[in-house]
Amino acid sequence: MRARHKPWAEDYLKENDDVVKLGAAEYKGKWQEEITDEKPLHVEIGTGKGQFIRGMAAQYPEVHFVGIEVVKSIIVSAVEKVKEAGSPNVTLINENAEDLLDIFEENEVDQIYLNFSDPWPKNRHEKRRLTYEAFLARYKHILKPDGELVLKTDNRGLFEYSVVSFSQFGCTVEEINVDLHAAEDPTNVMTEYEEKFSAKGQPIYRCRVTFPQ
Amino acid sequence: MRARHKPWAEDYLKENDDVVKLGAAEYKGKWQEEITDEKPLHVEIGTGKGQFIRGMAAQYPEVHFVGIEVVKSIIVSAVEKVKEAGSPNVTLINENAEDLLDIFEENEVDQIYLNFSDPWPKNRHEKRRLTYEAFLARYKHILKPDGELVLKTDNRGLFEYSVVSFSQFGCTVEEINVDLHAAEDPTNVMTEYEEKFSAKGQPIYRCRVTFPQ
Ligand SMILES: C[S@@+](CC[C@H](N)C(=O)[O-])C[C@H]1O[C@@H](n2cnc3c(N)ncnc32)[C@H](O)[C@@H]1O
Ligand SMILES: C[S@@+](CC[C@H](N)C(=O)[O-])C[C@H]1O[C@@H](n2cnc3c(N)ncnc32)[C@H](O)[C@@H]1O
Repeated sequence: MRARHKPWAEDYLKENDDVVKLGAAEYKGKWQEEITDEKPLHVEIGTGKGQFIRGMAAQYPEVHFVGIEVVKSIIVSAVEKVKEAGSPNVTLINENAEDLLDIFEENEVDQIYLNFSDPWPKNRHEKRRLTYEAFLARYKHILKPDGELVLKTDNRGLFEYSVVSFSQFGCTVEEINVDLHAAEDPTNVMTEYEEKFSAKGQPIYRCRVTFPQ
Repeated sequence: MRARHKPWAEDYLKENDDVVKLGAAEYKGKWQEEITDEKPLHVEIGTGKGQFIRGMAAQYPEVHFVGIEVVKSIIVSAVEKVKEAGSPNVTLINENAEDLLDIFEENEVDQIYLNFSDPWPKNRHEKRRLTYEAFLARYKHILKPDGELVLKTDNRGLFEYSVVSFSQFGCTVEEINVDLHAAEDPTNVMTEYEEKFSAKGQPIYRCRVTFPQ
């Protein structure tokens, strides 16, 4: 995802600390109490410009959504969207998914979404893929025992890699869909990338997995 | 797969007992000794008219292939193809996959292929699908501990069902391909159905799994 450099981004984030938290680690183990108002906690990793999280928050008011996005000039667009919608049940954090264990306590999260994650197609970049086993270990740690992860992507290579990576990690594939837009699904909330690639007629892939105990 | 009724099929099969065995149960536990000449044993279930097994036998002379096909008027076409090719490493059997445990001993089989199995799309027919858990239990029983199953299909519903069924049974997905013909693979041997559906531009799905121990 590209975004023009925005020198004012840092200040903009600081000014909007009701929507975006800068020191996310301070909530570790306290999300329920201090942020989610006892609602289930769903985490989207690589939130981008925020279309998915805004839509999900509107559709599921009984859930609190936390969106993680590492790039400042991108997360500002998500902040704008969430402010515009006035979604009370979204918190954005400007963090790297590598640091998940500093942000969430063991068993603190109910659900994780990976939407159109960067594919890193070269073998030597495997460790950067958000479904590399080291990331799966982090997800397992922060998810509750019955927690789930839902992945959506247009990228065939990343999808195939991810299903195998999940399976070899011991996850169970609870659902798989190799052409999400073949049938109308009114509950599906599209991301920016999903809108773009499905409009081009590319199949969108999805899977939902649980973790080994 | 449709085939005209062939009243002479039974006699034809009896006449060709070098290629097609009528009492397959008599080889249970003795395939290595009596049939495969100590070669690894690969079993295709629902062989149809035999294009895949003939191609595989030519490509892998070091393997012995057993093709199971329940419909007499269909298996005769496979017998014709195998005779024509003079493949020494193919045996056809006119059996139902439900009876696998009468045909093969525990740990007797190295690999299983399911090619374009009947999809049985209605929920109430789930038990007929060749990837229903009761079938998976049979496959696990006859496969060696490191044995593998490879499934190919054009049918999205069957594919999605099968991946979930495998995973919930405890299988590990070692490989998944959601558009087999997107890239040229000179080692891929096409089945009749594969030729037909890929020519129409439909994606062909494949996965390879191992079984829990
Ligand atoms: C290809 S974009 C997809 C954006 C959005 N999810 C969508 O579907 O339209 C991937 C996003 O993930 C972010 N990202 C990549 N690696 C990340 C990481 N380790 N931690 C947090 N965000 C990350 C990128 O900055 C980018 O905004
Ligand atoms: C859709 S056709 C596919 C044929 C071939 N594998 C191909 O890919 O072209 C499925 C075949 O499986 C056979 N079959 C279905 N159920 C079976 C069973 N329980 N045992 C053995 N063969 C079966 C059918 O008779 C049919 O020939």
